[in-house]
Amino acid sequence: MRQPLFMYHTSGDPFACPAGEGLLKLRLFVQAGEQLCCTVIHTDRYHSPGSELPRPMERIGCAGSYDIYEAVIELPERRSRYLFHAEAAGGEFVWYGERGVSVNREQAGSFQYAYLHHSYATALPSWSGEAVAYQIYPSSYNQGNLQGISDKIPYLQQLGITLIYMTPVFASPSDHKYNTSDYYTIDPVFGDTEQLKALVSRAHEHGIRVVLDAVFNHSGDTFFAFRDVLEKGEQSPYRDWFFIRSFPVTTCPMPNYETFAKAEAHMPKLNMNHPEVADYMLGVAKYWVREAGIDGWRLDVANEVHPEFWRRLRRELKAEFPELLLIGEIMHDSGPWLRGDQFDGGMNYIWREALLEFFAQQSIGPVRFMEQLLHQEALCNDQANSAMFQLLGSHDTLRFLTACKLGGRGWDREMTAIERMRLAVFVQMTYIGIPMIYYGDEVGMEGATDPDCRRPMLWQEETQNTEMHTWYCQLIALRRSHAALHSGSFRPWFTDEVRNAFGYVRQHGRDKIALVVNNSPNRYSLELNQFRADRNVLTDLLSGLTIRNTSRLIVEIEPFGCLMLH
Amino acid sequence: MRQPLFMYHTSGDPFACPAGEGLLKLRLFVQAGEQLCCTVIHTDRYHSPGSELPRPMERIGCAGSYDIYEAVIELPERRSRYLFHAEAAGGEFVWYGERGVSVNREQAGSFQYAYLHHSYATALPSWSGEAVAYQIYPSSYNQGNLQGISDKIPYLQQLGITLIYMTPVFASPSDHKYNTSDYYTIDPVFGDTEQLKALVSRAHEHGIRVVLDAVFNHSGDTFFAFRDVLEKGEQSPYRDWFFIRSFPVTTCPMPNYETFAKAEAHMPKLNMNHPEVADYMLGVAKYWVREAGIDGWRLDVANEVHPEFWRRLRRELKAEFPELLLIGEIMHDSGPWLRGDQFDGGMNYIWREALLEFFAQQSIGPVRFMEQLLHQEALCNDQANSAMFQLLGSHDTLRFLTACKLGGRGWDREMTAIERMRLAVFVQMTYIGIPMIYYGDEVGMEGATDPDCRRPMLWQEETQNTEMHTWYCQLIALRRSHAALHSGSFRPWFTDEVRNAFGYVRQHGRDKIALVVNNSPNRYSLELNQFRADRNVLTDLLSGLTIRNTSRLIVEIEPFGCLMLH
Repeated sequence: MRQPLFMYHTSGDPFACPAGEGLLKLRLFVQAGEQLCCTVIHTDRYHSPGSELPRPMERIGCAGSYDIYEAVIELPERRSRYLFHAEAAGGEFVWYGERGVSVNREQAGSFQYAYLHHSYATALPSWSGEAVAYQIYPSSYNQGNLQGISDKIPYLQQLGITLIYMTPVFASPSDHKYNTSDYYTIDPVFGDTEQLKALVSRAHEHGIRVVLDAVFNHSGDTFFAFRDVLEKGEQSPYRDWFFIRSFPVTTCPMPNYETFAKAEAHMPKLNMNHPEVADYMLGVAKYWVREAGIDGWRLDVANEVHPEFWRRLRRELKAEFPELLLIGEIMHDSGPWLRGDQFDGGMNYIWREALLEFFAQQSIGPVRFMEQLLHQEALCNDQANSAMFQLLGSHDTLRFLTACKLGGRGWDREMTAIERMRLAVFVQMTYIGIPMIYYGDEVGMEGATDPDCRRPMLWQEETQNTEMHTWYCQLIALRRSHAALHSGSFRPWFTDEVRNAFGYVRQHGRDKIALVVNNSPNRYSLELNQFRADRNVLTDLLSGLTIRNTSRLIVEIEPFGCLMLH
Repeated sequence: MRQPLFMYHTSGDPFACPAGEGLLKLRLFVQAGEQLCCTVIHTDRYHSPGSELPRPMERIGCAGSYDIYEAVIELPERRSRYLFHAEAAGGEFVWYGERGVSVNREQAGSFQYAYLHHSYATALPSWSGEAVAYQIYPSSYNQGNLQGISDKIPYLQQLGITLIYMTPVFASPSDHKYNTSDYYTIDPVFGDTEQLKALVSRAHEHGIRVVLDAVFNHSGDTFFAFRDVLEKGEQSPYRDWFFIRSFPVTTCPMPNYETFAKAEAHMPKLNMNHPEVADYMLGVAKYWVREAGIDGWRLDVANEVHPEFWRRLRRELKAEFPELLLIGEIMHDSGPWLRGDQFDGGMNYIWREALLEFFAQQSIGPVRFMEQLLHQEALCNDQANSAMFQLLGSHDTLRFLTACKLGGRGWDREMTAIERMRLAVFVQMTYIGIPMIYYGDEVGMEGATDPDCRRPMLWQEETQNTEMHTWYCQLIALRRSHAALHSGSFRPWFTDEVRNAFGYVRQHGRDKIALVVNNSPNRYSLELNQFRADRNVLTDLLSGLTIRNTSRLIVEIEPFGCLMLH
């Protein structure tokens, strides 16, 4: 064993997380390159030394420079004292507790999980685990309004999605509507409150839920409070609703107030620590749930608003509407916002980065790709991971198919773009979280970054890639009909760096599905003997082909093909 | 360089912490055993690639299996995007960002510090930085009451302390009073509200502040609400103030309700998530500050109460009393409660463990001791570290002097117990945080664990160790008169494992003090040439001896001696 061995753990989320009544899931990072046997020794915090029980830890896999080990332990009295034991093949070992790594158990100390609190507005909606989301940019979808979207509900139901997320629909002078003028009014371009209610109602009749977009980090400069400040300056009762650096307020040469991003003069930053502003926006958040019956909020620029506001928002909204979904827009590591007290999930842009690199650009191989999946999963607790919007693109990014056409390896990379996109969708629909389809991706739409990615939806069949559409329908249907695919655990199975293929397993109870991806222009032969012990007949859920027990099980996977073994 | 190099960082406390207006302190853990040059490359989150600036990181020291690197960066627009670069002597390097470690900068991704919030009830009291605390167990101090304590204020002022912390004084049937009967009444054994007010007032006149102990995790079983539940069972309006598992409530054979610790029937756990209970206890917390003018609360069993309550308590108390000190009793790693939204500081029991091992038991050497100091410091942000109650003992532990007598190395270990205790006090008074003296330690009191450590204070001079008292007075006076000692940074200087000595430096602006500890029965010769460049004359603040510039500066330190070089 390398000495000293660097391990990392803290007794808080995402390293120690509630995992059901009286259960605690522990996660340990250990520097990579060791073959270790890790065990956690645990007991009640108030029990005397000597009462500790060992629990072997599972090595989940390598996340780059560290390996991840996990175990679930029982806390009958809601409190735990525990420490880790890591042993190398040669018998050498170390202990690891809150006082660090040591060969001396006492000097390592123990981690303490103080108290497993009775649940308290931390739960996800009961329906989110099986959700498949679809993002709509309203002005580009159908007729550019709510009625148009409503008319397409049957189309969406046929696609198989269960959740529509729409970018903002409230009054705003821009096309994207992220600079809100009036949080209580639907923009007339889109319709009115009655039309929103009709849309939500129709969606619900078709088994589809609706999530709206709320922008509480900043308002538009046309918002009544900001207009009042522009008009009355220091005398305005709303002057502290914003961060005004000096009066009079001006935008030349630069805004003398805080804004969203880099001097976006039309988007003055809101002071969400101000009780009046917090009350106002909380009123908005409640109003639309009560009034229109929406099923959730996606909160814009969630990472730049004070967590104290989000905690209050969650507490008050979940108390009144326990089935509401709360998604934060955090374009980087969203773990800190997903500890159970702010959002249910986030918009997973860093997950998209990994898929871009592996499928679109082909700049990384399967080893690094699998490491990335594990590294990202380890940033959050299981509950948050199950509510992440796993997206290939959005209104703020290059479309994935366009990225596939621009990237990739080999002379025929443009020809394989569609195939690589199909593989990415395969991973999206067979991975943990809530897959989120950006409108039009399912019919092969293309587009460069904002605003080109916001082109009108292609509705004429001759402009659509119908094979892509069929592929989405098939994968969504499979995901929804197999608990392993929407709610199972994720484990790496193998990576084949040379031949650019990898496999993973999703498991829910006894339901186990193995997924294989061949990200290369060559056929891939895979020996399946490992599966024989499990079951005599394997079925590929994609082709329907059954594979019977023979002395040697080998399946051939097409170039850029995939397999879903049940 | 070892590959892959394991590093750890997240863009939240205690790895990324506000460090003054527009400043962010970054901390990076890197597996030990490498000689690396670490740099952080940073820019505004909304600036384009290429605008990043490099900032060299300081290697603070080794904390066991990892090294700590730190840097402070500027965030003119309150937002930062950054990644780390670690380079070995041979020129090999890696990048580290939110997507992990990679030789490829783009694949490493960037960490994002979303927004440096305008301060919001996160600040410490202006007075806590220079505080020296003294813990009193009221029934054992003087006449066993508040009047007795009040009479000893001149003694405490002469000792030099600036803060009294008293264990609970509210009505309770026990001697320790941690099972509260009435949160609004002073226990008649101690006096009444007027006597508390007189004590606080007299202390304030002598420049001493007063912190009381509040027990909100559980009440006593004599608390009115619990008595009502005992009497009326399921019909009691207070049934949900506790966690009752079944009715009628019973204690035989075991309590059928949640309690503090292991079935402590007299201490039923309070349901602090219940709005009525939270309101009630918040009322208590405010009442005594308003009524008696106390300067802070020490919150008992803080780690087992829901953080949501503590956040509310902090928000509401600090809004009304910004100069109030809030200390949580967390007997293990208290970092998670000290992120700026709950407590100012904690009771630092794990720090005591390190001092016990090094000075009392002599079971670890200076290398491990120094690693422990750094490891523990790295669990918290700087502000929290500056408000930790650094204690050698309390009403819940063996007294430190007794531990020194029971432990140590060599045939003369009992004879050196006092000397080792003196060295521990030396470190306590020259380290970061708020030194907390447990009553009587300053006159050499002894005592085994609870309740023996709660013996009556020794007031007769013939029973006191007056040299120890002088030592405390001298060190407290030095601490209070040197900003470097009470508010300076801490940096390891050297460790001499063979001769059992070590040195460290405290620095505040240009004020720099070097401390040396010789934890061995032999004289220790120390070459000081390193200091020559700084200043030509060095002064030992303990002896008053000045050391002038000669060609070779060597000082001799007595067995179990120490040095404080200015």
